[in-house]
Amino acid sequence: MNTKHSTPLEVRALLFDVLGTVVDWRSGIARQVSSFLERCGVVHVDAADFADTWSRLYDQATDAVRSGKRPFARLDVLNRENLEAAFKAVSIEPKLLPSADLDELNLAWHRLDPWPDSISGLTRLKSKFIIGPLSGGNTSLLLDMAKRAGLPWDVVLGSDVVEVYKPAPEAYLRTCEFLGLRPDQVLLVAAHNDDLAGARRCGMRTAFIPRPAEHGPSQTTDLAPLDDWDVIASDLVDLADKLGA
Amino acid sequence: MNTKHSTPLEVRALLFDVLGTVVDWRSGIARQVSSFLERCGVVHVDAADFADTWSRLYDQATDAVRSGKRPFARLDVLNRENLEAAFKAVSIEPKLLPSADLDELNLAWHRLDPWPDSISGLTRLKSKFIIGPLSGGNTSLLLDMAKRAGLPWDVVLGSDVVEVYKPAPEAYLRTCEFLGLRPDQVLLVAAHNDDLAGARRCGMRTAFIPRPAEHGPSQTTDLAPLDDWDVIASDLVDLADKLGA
Repeated sequence: MNTKHSTPLEVRALLFDVLGTVVDWRSGIARQVSSFLERCGVVHVDAADFADTWSRLYDQATDAVRSGKRPFARLDVLNRENLEAAFKAVSIEPKLLPSADLDELNLAWHRLDPWPDSISGLTRLKSKFIIGPLSGGNTSLLLDMAKRAGLPWDVVLGSDVVEVYKPAPEAYLRTCEFLGLRPDQVLLVAAHNDDLAGARRCGMRTAFIPRPAEHGPSQTTDLAPLDDWDVIASDLVDLADKLGA
Repeated sequence: MNTKHSTPLEVRALLFDVLGTVVDWRSGIARQVSSFLERCGVVHVDAADFADTWSRLYDQATDAVRSGKRPFARLDVLNRENLEAAFKAVSIEPKLLPSADLDELNLAWHRLDPWPDSISGLTRLKSKFIIGPLSGGNTSLLLDMAKRAGLPWDVVLGSDVVEVYKPAPEAYLRTCEFLGLRPDQVLLVAAHNDDLAGARRCGMRTAFIPRPAEHGPSQTTDLAPLDDWDVIASDLVDLADKLGA
């Protein structure tokens, strides 16, 4: 294993970015938004575009928490606010939609499907390492998702446990601390270069896997590793091969 | 299912006391203490008595945290202090023992074996419910234990996440909150009546299973349910039967 550390490899746990890296959020959100719009009789809104808007608002909302502009709030709470903003962006007044239906649609983030290689890759990796998410998702979101999709996590510590969003250093450091491991004993697996950069700054090991369809057919970002990450693999099954799991 | 609640049963998650209910701490600690004493050439100390002493100090130390006499400290930290006290109690000066060896012995709590019915019972229960520990153990203790013993938890939130020890109400309530569930959607499984009483005070459902050998052959406590708990089962396999899992 190619590594930037001079010490021998001693990784005991693998933590995974989830939204984009383990599950395909865009298709899953678009599918559920599409059913919702159909039930409402809305025909002028593209569900995949709506998913992109809703997701972009995630970045803005977590930025506000990271910068201290607002106190920590669970991702379910941020997503619910952003859902209303996403409706406004397509000229639909959310106050005209039943609040309980919006609450239900907000749980779409709990019901996302894994990429085709995720379950088999994670199952193999679990035989050799502690595996868990390191995600912006709150614990119940990650847990509901795992139960529905069969993601075989050993441990689920959502961002509501550490009360901070990646790539803030505490997100990585405090999670390693809960595992009772030094950062260099933990490897972050992500399809996002900025997330890996955050992990490396904290002393964690890093693995990049590309998810070139995460943002749909015209994706331009994160198509390739932008730094010499410790491991580069084509997907989670290839990662299991490369880590001897 | 016999229940004290007027609403229909809506349990979504089962949380388990671990030390005593899922794993046999006394035999496991005695076995590891025995090897340690043998290596040190100590012959006058009974390892099972030593395990009992070490465990009793747990109650005192967590009482001090619950009452606010000292700030929260992880169970690994309390156990390490108590290990020294347990040596003093048998007239062995812990400062004469290598500190690294004591650190290693302290991890005995991470290496406890399940009762014979635990894995099969939990595996069946997991097919129908979210399952996880609700223990005084810190996350890394519970996680290491689960990986070693094959306990198939869906989620592991140690007492270091909520920073409080049972039976303080926050231990139950905050864990339910992380799961995104109301207390009446969560059932505590324990071999200890006082733990179940704590859970019921918070609105959780309760299941008692006896572990009459937890404290060795002369156990006098928790041999039977002391209240009308929602479910009473003989072990975790019987619990799976009774909950239709």
